[in-house]
Amino acid sequence: MLVVQKYGGTSVGTLDRIDAVAKRVAKTKEAGHDVIVVVSAMSGETNKLIDYAKHFSKSPKQREMDMLLSSGERVTSSLLAIALSEIGSLAVALSGGQAGIKTDNSHTKARIESIDRTCIEKIIKKGSIAVIAGFQGITELGEVSTLGRGGSDLSAVAIAGALEADLCEIYTDVDGIYTTDPRIEPKAKKLEKISYDEMLELASLGANVLQTRSVEMAKKLNVNLVTRNSFNDNEGTLITKEENIMEQPLVSGVVLDKNQARITLRGVIDKPGIAAEIFRKLSKTDINVDMIIQNVGQDGTTNLGFTVPQNELEIARNAMKSLNASKSVEYDSDIIKVSIVGVGMKSHSGVACTAFDTLFKEGINLEMISTSEIKISIVILAKYGELAVRALHAAYKLDK
Amino acid sequence: MLVVQKYGGTSVGTLDRIDAVAKRVAKTKEAGHDVIVVVSAMSGETNKLIDYAKHFSKSPKQREMDMLLSSGERVTSSLLAIALSEIGSLAVALSGGQAGIKTDNSHTKARIESIDRTCIEKIIKKGSIAVIAGFQGITELGEVSTLGRGGSDLSAVAIAGALEADLCEIYTDVDGIYTTDPRIEPKAKKLEKISYDEMLELASLGANVLQTRSVEMAKKLNVNLVTRNSFNDNEGTLITKEENIMEQPLVSGVVLDKNQARITLRGVIDKPGIAAEIFRKLSKTDINVDMIIQNVGQDGTTNLGFTVPQNELEIARNAMKSLNASKSVEYDSDIIKVSIVGVGMKSHSGVACTAFDTLFKEGINLEMISTSEIKISIVILAKYGELAVRALHAAYKLDK
Repeated sequence: MLVVQKYGGTSVGTLDRIDAVAKRVAKTKEAGHDVIVVVSAMSGETNKLIDYAKHFSKSPKQREMDMLLSSGERVTSSLLAIALSEIGSLAVALSGGQAGIKTDNSHTKARIESIDRTCIEKIIKKGSIAVIAGFQGITELGEVSTLGRGGSDLSAVAIAGALEADLCEIYTDVDGIYTTDPRIEPKAKKLEKISYDEMLELASLGANVLQTRSVEMAKKLNVNLVTRNSFNDNEGTLITKEENIMEQPLVSGVVLDKNQARITLRGVIDKPGIAAEIFRKLSKTDINVDMIIQNVGQDGTTNLGFTVPQNELEIARNAMKSLNASKSVEYDSDIIKVSIVGVGMKSHSGVACTAFDTLFKEGINLEMISTSEIKISIVILAKYGELAVRALHAAYKLDK
Repeated sequence: MLVVQKYGGTSVGTLDRIDAVAKRVAKTKEAGHDVIVVVSAMSGETNKLIDYAKHFSKSPKQREMDMLLSSGERVTSSLLAIALSEIGSLAVALSGGQAGIKTDNSHTKARIESIDRTCIEKIIKKGSIAVIAGFQGITELGEVSTLGRGGSDLSAVAIAGALEADLCEIYTDVDGIYTTDPRIEPKAKKLEKISYDEMLELASLGANVLQTRSVEMAKKLNVNLVTRNSFNDNEGTLITKEENIMEQPLVSGVVLDKNQARITLRGVIDKPGIAAEIFRKLSKTDINVDMIIQNVGQDGTTNLGFTVPQNELEIARNAMKSLNASKSVEYDSDIIKVSIVGVGMKSHSGVACTAFDTLFKEGINLEMISTSEIKISIVILAKYGELAVRALHAAYKLDK
């Protein structure tokens, strides 16, 4: 089996932790697998380097930032290769460029364009372990580029895809993906398997584990992702394509999004193009509009509600000021969004009904509702957030 | 004028120091010169990385050590380029490989084989400053290599040679080269100019400033070296070819070598090949034999004396044990070597006489003497070392 293992910053945060990682990698190799390792910088290193750069400039040159930041992962990959050699495992450290990761020229947020398998394949054929500095690649011009935050996951997934690895294990300091946030509902259970689409909808449950870009890439390249804890030997959560999941549960998880604010336009003139104008205005300010609800109103007007991230509410407010499309605009940051996600919804009706019924019984009013194929999202008053999560978690028997 | 400036670890040891370096570089550029900068890692960084590697292995893989250690200089070059841009000077950070420095495959002690001027020239033609990570290059196979301790000086000198720079300034935390160690003789004067050969003989006076390899390379490539202090604006010491020094002083400096031990073989059988056998034995153990004196003895035997570095005395002792070439062997680490260096000696007689006379007047016995074209070295008892330096410094009027 060909296994790609990616170790995040906390997993390689100290020299002793790197020792532990080396042992785990060696064990996988000794079990008869071919192993490619992708590493992040030691935790704190990247932030330290960013602070250094900020000492000199508020907006440091991006090309130089990439050269600067890429050094952290190079250090970890060198150290891990040295540690592996010491315990008898052949290992070769590679920078992103040496590993064949070609990106576009967008410094500090480059996109992987292609991966040249030659170098990694040669190392593996020799029976060695390739230890690759994550988060970085090389541009056509030979410049060092970085992939942005969470970029090491992207490196790992892209390499797993290019080399058709059987498994891409992402090691962090948590066991996997849970049915909901265990800090809200201690009865939350770790999921054994979950589909790419569910994972994308449950993004915030995996916020510390996996970034959306990596899951999207895994889906595109058909990479079997496993999130595991580098501090124990527990089984993690497999993120794979829907067909690989035999028993699809009705609901996989309940997730709370606290970073939402609502904007309500009352008395919007009901003529074609008016909504388009509003959202064109917002998109120009790079605001991420999430839920949009339009209700029929009175006197030829409608009411239009939508949510934006709380930290973008001020920008949205400014954008709305220059529009004169409605009688009044209300801003409300005292709301929260609870979502239920599950591929089983596709083939089962009544899932939404259970949710509405559950919240009604708890005396929680539904402010906004939006549904997609595998997700039901409900906006409620912020104070009911945790109560709603616990009630829904129980209603769908996620604690069983 | 094309100026190469090299800043050592203490000169870029803190973020504030890097700010100061940026200002100095910008000033040179604003004075109308083309500038290439070569930087070391921030002081302490390289040792930290070595300690990291030692945590994992007593003899870490050299290829991986190079990837590891080269990161320190990359960080400094990125930061300095960012700092320069912020104060309005165009600057581009380059790794050794990007700067076109090609080396052989001897990881951790690579030799520069050639320099491809293309990239640096392109940057300079655009009016930018090239900020190059010192100490490193790239092998034919595209692997990162490092040049060993003091390697950033080598990078600077090699680049100055390849681009036919008018000046190569080496910035450290001392003002330049002195007539002797100011800790021994406070009247020591800073030298304005000195020839390459004198500098090579005075190596220990410049031990914290310049390494022998760099001076040798500067001589070979005919690079005008200047050592300066990055903490002030004092003029430094120019190290150049003999023809560039108008008034050649009789003696340029007096230097003490405390790291010497003497081995004396009494009653060596006086037959051809016996000395060769002894030194072949020693060379196999990589011991650096310095002075060798052979005296006529009695009864067909001779006495043979030579010095070795003190820290190699034990290895030498072991090597001698397996030889049975003399009646007795004496080991003496209580000696010291004082040397007088000056190109003026070539054309003046009586220089040695002054030295012998001066030491005689101080009651110091001469244990061993060896002379070369521009150097007189005398081994004396260690306790007389400082006294000898002060007496000779005065005798040759170096304090005037």
